[in-house]
Amino acid sequence: MERALVVGTGLIGTSVALALREKEVAVYLSDVDAHAVRLARELGAGQEWTGQDVDLALIAVPPHIVGERLADLQKQGVARAYTDVASVKVDPIADAQRLGCDLTSYVPGHPLAGRERSGPAAARADLFLGRPWALCPGPETGAGAVRRARELVSMGGAKAVTVGAGEHDLAVALVSHAPHVVASAVAASLEGGDDVALGLAGQGLRDVTRIAAGDPLLWRMILFGNALPVAGVLERIAADLAAAASALRSGDLDDVTDLLRRGVDGHGRIPGKHGGPVREAGR
Amino acid sequence: MERALVVGTGLIGTSVALALREKEVAVYLSDVDAHAVRLARELGAGQEWTGQDVDLALIAVPPHIVGERLADLQKQGVARAYTDVASVKVDPIADAQRLGCDLTSYVPGHPLAGRERSGPAAARADLFLGRPWALCPGPETGAGAVRRARELVSMGGAKAVTVGAGEHDLAVALVSHAPHVVASAVAASLEGGDDVALGLAGQGLRDVTRIAAGDPLLWRMILFGNALPVAGVLERIAADLAAAASALRSGDLDDVTDLLRRGVDGHGRIPGKHGGPVREAGR
Repeated sequence: MERALVVGTGLIGTSVALALREKEVAVYLSDVDAHAVRLARELGAGQEWTGQDVDLALIAVPPHIVGERLADLQKQGVARAYTDVASVKVDPIADAQRLGCDLTSYVPGHPLAGRERSGPAAARADLFLGRPWALCPGPETGAGAVRRARELVSMGGAKAVTVGAGEHDLAVALVSHAPHVVASAVAASLEGGDDVALGLAGQGLRDVTRIAAGDPLLWRMILFGNALPVAGVLERIAADLAAAASALRSGDLDDVTDLLRRGVDGHGRIPGKHGGPVREAGR
Repeated sequence: MERALVVGTGLIGTSVALALREKEVAVYLSDVDAHAVRLARELGAGQEWTGQDVDLALIAVPPHIVGERLADLQKQGVARAYTDVASVKVDPIADAQRLGCDLTSYVPGHPLAGRERSGPAAARADLFLGRPWALCPGPETGAGAVRRARELVSMGGAKAVTVGAGEHDLAVALVSHAPHVVASAVAASLEGGDDVALGLAGQGLRDVTRIAAGDPLLWRMILFGNALPVAGVLERIAADLAAAASALRSGDLDDVTDLLRRGVDGHGRIPGKHGGPVREAGR
């Protein structure tokens, strides 16, 4: 890959651009927000796009406009391959089909990385290092396009995970989207505490609620695009919590202990932790 | 403080002992489990207790036997002051009253620190550094006892937070016990995912579920001792999650966005993060 276009210079798009620049790829930048492009350029992410052809175009815009951007770019014949970074995959693919996009050159993608901060100023070339990066090629996707998308993942230092779009959306509902809503609900419950109560917060609470600091409007879009799978997971968790509360009121804690045990088992299923020592838990 | 007794050489007791040893305090160790005492001794936490008198006795045993141990020690006239580390306070104090303990020399305490691992081998002298340490003296508690308990907190490098026992239990239900059950419920939900789904887990999920690795039997005891306050918090969180699920099913995401916003606000109420850079969130 020699030339790439990044459409959408937010956190993810600019981070990809920075990673590609480190690999000597010529990167062109585009965003509806001229300020975001300027900032990304000043950070060394590449130069402003003025219509150049590229090997790969990365569409890093909110999920509900991925299909539209893909259709625009393909109409201009900008790139040999296209991918996106939206955290849901079924809806953008359906949009692309509906808009008559060429699905042979489009490899739906999703890097599992992010930060609480958004925008180009929060971007980092190493954002994807060691992270999973889902690729969801369909039966019609061309081998050349997949090869270019995999090259991008590899340049970002991420691990490509090939998965069907539907399976992807169910998976991220479970491991990312529903946990985000749960973290928000725990954080929201703190509104009921006074300063003394909050003063007793330990590292455990900080960790459980950390992702709740994420941008509500960005997360609204993500959840809207994956609503039913997320609802299913949240219903199961809400039922477990309601049952635990009722067991606590009854004084028979066997069901609660069972939930704690299932939690230990489920936690043990999360593969290889990313770096860092064991951290402390406030109790 | 020149001489201290630590009753219960698990994670917390042994960590306190190690911290006191660093301050040149003579530390005596006692535990119903001879192996735990030997291990703590070998780690440099002090010497085995053979009935010596001390300035302060720290009772680091499960909540439901704190009152009983306190009564035993006071009958032997072992210490000038007594404190404990149980993560609930109302029940142990009620036990102490029921058992006719001398409440003037007893300062109920709770260091907000812990680890997923338990036992003396996991102990660290710096476990309490910068952490809140609740002290819950009642109207009958003597000033001398409070002074000794505060000296202990200070030697551990922790910050003393004075709070009523009832207020303490409501507070830790909110900032520690209910979040633990919620983390367990999220981790338990992962049982439903296949390996591909778990392979997409990011740092966000790891953080939300980290404390779910804690010992289920220890947590059963903690929750049993603070059942009604925890139930109340869990019911509110379960209701928020059920409402979010139902909003997602209906396609009207205003309530979900409101929950996300309340989460940002609640997260912002957690005072001064402990060390470490901003960490990454998988999405």
